Amino acid sequence: MPNEMLDESAERGAAAGGTLRPERIRAAQQRMRQAGIDAYMILTHDDYIYFFGEDRFQPRAILPAQGPPIVIAFRGEEEEIKATLGLSKVRVFGTVGQQIKDVVESMREMFAAKPNPVVGVQMWFATPAFLLTMFQKANPKLQVVDIAPVMDELRMVKDPEEIGLMSKAGAIAATGMEAAVRTLRPGVTENEVAAEAEYAMRKAGGSGTATPIFVNSGVRSAWLHGCATDRKIQEGDLVVVDLVPVYRGYCANLCRTFVMGAPSETQKKLFATYKSAQQAGIAALQIGARMTDIDAAARAAFQAAGYDDFFVPGISHSIGLSFEEAPAPTIRPQHAAFPLRENMTVTVGHSVLSVPGVGGVRLEDTFHVTSNQPRPLTSFPAEFAIF
Amino acid sequence: MPNEMLDESAERGAAAGGTLRPERIRAAQQRMRQAGIDAYMILTHDDYIYFFGEDRFQPRAILPAQGPPIVIAFRGEEEEIKATLGLSKVRVFGTVGQQIKDVVESMREMFAAKPNPVVGVQMWFATPAFLLTMFQKANPKLQVVDIAPVMDELRMVKDPEEIGLMSKAGAIAATGMEAAVRTLRPGVTENEVAAEAEYAMRKAGGSGTATPIFVNSGVRSAWLHGCATDRKIQEGDLVVVDLVPVYRGYCANLCRTFVMGAPSETQKKLFATYKSAQQAGIAALQIGARMTDIDAAARAAFQAAGYDDFFVPGISHSIGLSFEEAPAPTIRPQHAAFPLRENMTVTVGHSVLSVPGVGGVRLEDTFHVTSNQPRPLTSFPAEFAIF
Repeated sequence: MPNEMLDESAERGAAAGGTLRPERIRAAQQRMRQAGIDAYMILTHDDYIYFFGEDRFQPRAILPAQGPPIVIAFRGEEEEIKATLGLSKVRVFGTVGQQIKDVVESMREMFAAKPNPVVGVQMWFATPAFLLTMFQKANPKLQVVDIAPVMDELRMVKDPEEIGLMSKAGAIAATGMEAAVRTLRPGVTENEVAAEAEYAMRKAGGSGTATPIFVNSGVRSAWLHGCATDRKIQEGDLVVVDLVPVYRGYCANLCRTFVMGAPSETQKKLFATYKSAQQAGIAALQIGARMTDIDAAARAAFQAAGYDDFFVPGISHSIGLSFEEAPAPTIRPQHAAFPLRENMTVTVGHSVLSVPGVGGVRLEDTFHVTSNQPRPLTSFPAEFAIF
Repeated sequence: MPNEMLDESAERGAAAGGTLRPERIRAAQQRMRQAGIDAYMILTHDDYIYFFGEDRFQPRAILPAQGPPIVIAFRGEEEEIKATLGLSKVRVFGTVGQQIKDVVESMREMFAAKPNPVVGVQMWFATPAFLLTMFQKANPKLQVVDIAPVMDELRMVKDPEEIGLMSKAGAIAATGMEAAVRTLRPGVTENEVAAEAEYAMRKAGGSGTATPIFVNSGVRSAWLHGCATDRKIQEGDLVVVDLVPVYRGYCANLCRTFVMGAPSETQKKLFATYKSAQQAGIAALQIGARMTDIDAAARAAFQAAGYDDFFVPGISHSIGLSFEEAPAPTIRPQHAAFPLRENMTVTVGHSVLSVPGVGGVRLEDTFHVTSNQPRPLTSFPAEFAIF
């Protein structure tokens, strides 16, 4: 692609070690032109990191279908951001009000000749409805569309660098799980277990977690999601520990379930069922398999154990710069038909096996889909009883 | 208020120590009826905790203008949630798809006789645009409005229990800041400082933070917001440490700036200026004062020091179940005119004093507005140099 597509300084900056990713920008711009999208208004961390290779709180940038991107940054950050990105065009603001005006003005300048430019926005969890409403009021002539057709296609297939970062996140998750296991004993609170896991993951290089740390014990093991409370863990409890550490923007998901002391026969059966369901799901991670095929494989194991009523569809979802990204069938039902491609990264074990009155069990790992066997990006023993 | 307003079992449950808050529900329902809102569709943690006194991941509940609330929970959570809330009517779902159907059906049953019921939704950061679009498509007859006129009025004035929880969050923040100070030295990374602060706050009873922990060092001290990276802190650096721990849903905000070693004259001036600006802002925390008056007081100190160009409006915002809630003038400009009321809780020190090429300084504390002096809910020495 010719240089005029991008800021020349950006090409030089990237060549000299700047964090900007010209190849990703060009790929997105090509798709935007095909989709008739004039600009992508970047408002979220994941896509900001994807293009700019660095993170900042409340990232704001505009990527036109042609030409250099504009980063909208606080004036105190201008100098540093130019140096980091190797990008000469940074639009700076002094107040939050000015930031909004800068976005609006940048849009107007960019599309002075277009009566109704089409602007893509990410329609996912991190784009608040009220912000979009404010943006549309300030830019009444813009037609706002979902950027998913551009970004989902790019982001769902990972490059080797991304796989490497996720593998590192996976190692951090294992460090956190080890710390949780060391801490788990009757009398300790869920929050104390979370504290040790969180601390171990930070010390191992993680920059926090993409979801709250789940330490769901006793009756709370049956929860669909979770958190960590001041509840004291008791002898005989099932305890679901779910960790999604972030390393340089990238997530890995590792979940294990433990029982405090000798497991009951029912607990053993729940655990064995989940283990076989997860194994069946992992075996289904083949190029061309649809997300529903992974569900079907796991479901068969639930059925065989007589737990079909308790199967929660959506045992697998994609993961990367976001904890849950396309394909994510529990959020977008149409994603259930997505076929797996080489170098996708997905989890298996998203659904809890939750039996009312008994409790819940869950085992989740992250995988790299390859032309051979799926390659685990998380690794931790699936042991169960803690004495 | 008569009992028929609420589920009788809820009244009994609350009386018997259930977590449901009937008095808050009744107050909201009264305002909803005045505002012509038929139901409030609760999708966010803050308002869920406000009414139900407990938290769960992806909370979903419907509060009609009259009658008992409906909590929509995963079937594995039904038993526990009924016991916790003391609420007999919990609508359970088995899959995420069913959850959406349950919401839709509950709405239809509730408004069978109304052609176009008005449903309030929180229009703030935690309500994603795509979710609202899905909800509107599934409920085309509903008229969706912002619930702010109901909830802002209720939540901006805190009761003694809420003040107590925020005071506890403030104590947790101080514990985190002590840990940060113990860790700060040249050669340590920002992330290592964050790790120690985070760990100390969890151990002190916090359940995580409402915003990422900021450890902004060196050139990054000039950032408007922040994060913590692998950057090694250096001799002479300014380091902004910003902590917003959460205790049982409630936040407190504490921010301090340090200099590594002997401060330069310019660093001293920045610090002294910020300190006097914060003091002026605190002195302005009087019942009846508008949010802009607090800004004006702080700005005068910046002007006196010749830093007027670097003043970022919005030095104060309300805080409680959310890190930033109404009044929050940097998000909703019209909130700048809001007058302070007794028992509001606000921070002073939200703006960074960021001088390009020099760095940034910020000191932020949380206060309870009273009829006398504002009462600090955070307390930590405003010392500066770390040797």
